[in-house]
Amino acid sequence: MTLPARPFVAPLVLYFEDYPPGRVFELGDIDVDPIEVQAFAQRFDPQPFHIDAAAAAQSAYGGIIASGWHTASLAMRLLTETFLSPDSSLGSPGIDELRWLLPVRPGDRLSGRASILSARRSQSQPDRGIAITLIELRNQHGATVLTMKAVNLLRCRPA
Amino acid sequence: MTLPARPFVAPLVLYFEDYPPGRVFELGDIDVDPIEVQAFAQRFDPQPFHIDAAAAAQSAYGGIIASGWHTASLAMRLLTETFLSPDSSLGSPGIDELRWLLPVRPGDRLSGRASILSARRSQSQPDRGIAITLIELRNQHGATVLTMKAVNLLRCRPA
Repeated sequence: MTLPARPFVAPLVLYFEDYPPGRVFELGDIDVDPIEVQAFAQRFDPQPFHIDAAAAAQSAYGGIIASGWHTASLAMRLLTETFLSPDSSLGSPGIDELRWLLPVRPGDRLSGRASILSARRSQSQPDRGIAITLIELRNQHGATVLTMKAVNLLRCRPA
Repeated sequence: MTLPARPFVAPLVLYFEDYPPGRVFELGDIDVDPIEVQAFAQRFDPQPFHIDAAAAAQSAYGGIIASGWHTASLAMRLLTETFLSPDSSLGSPGIDELRWLLPVRPGDRLSGRASILSARRSQSQPDRGIAITLIELRNQHGATVLTMKAVNLLRCRPA
């Protein structure tokens, strides 16, 4: 799979305390690379409307669309650049209500936003907390293409 | 990204009527390729416990683990081979309760199962139905590493 060039983004320094409910993070933009759309789908989601231009044109989508897992993975890339910090990110137990609302097409440009819905300190492990965040991706026309609620385990700021 | 070799699997011919509640599909196996783990994470999820062996060894995971989005994408590959049919698969509006239950490590071998939870004919578009399916991935030790509930739009069998 080609790895589209992407400028280096310095890692953030953030801790659980930096994710209060209501805080909104703008996640920046990422391009939907046509070659990557094809390569991702060939490997992980080789359905005709992802990999076969003629079949896709005849489908309800009217042309090739990106695998929803590719779109979600692009959202993850934005999250690692402008939302999660290597100093505090401990991983995620899961995602709720992942929604693919509109097709994402090769050449689209997606921008993201993360809004903290809730945050609570862990009772069993007081060095960390759990944040639930609404993630939204919009395309270059301003239409929301993906939403999901992510659960993140986050280390607290050292005493 | 390297594309690990995978034998060709003939497309299934299935329609909405073939997905009744209670039917279970065994999805087969797929290897977690170490080079792909690294390449996927470098592009989409470059957190230290996915890409940096030394940092991962010091983390709670004790070594490199695959991005959860990579694991979900491997599940999708199995679904395209042994569950979804190009004759009926119309895409998915989303996923509920995606859970990463245990770490997935380079070299693991994952096997999948899809169990139909519900299936209903669309009222607005009678040529299709909506199935909700529990997807489970287990590792080579029999431990469940991922579960999710997938919503699929499926074309009905032609009259």
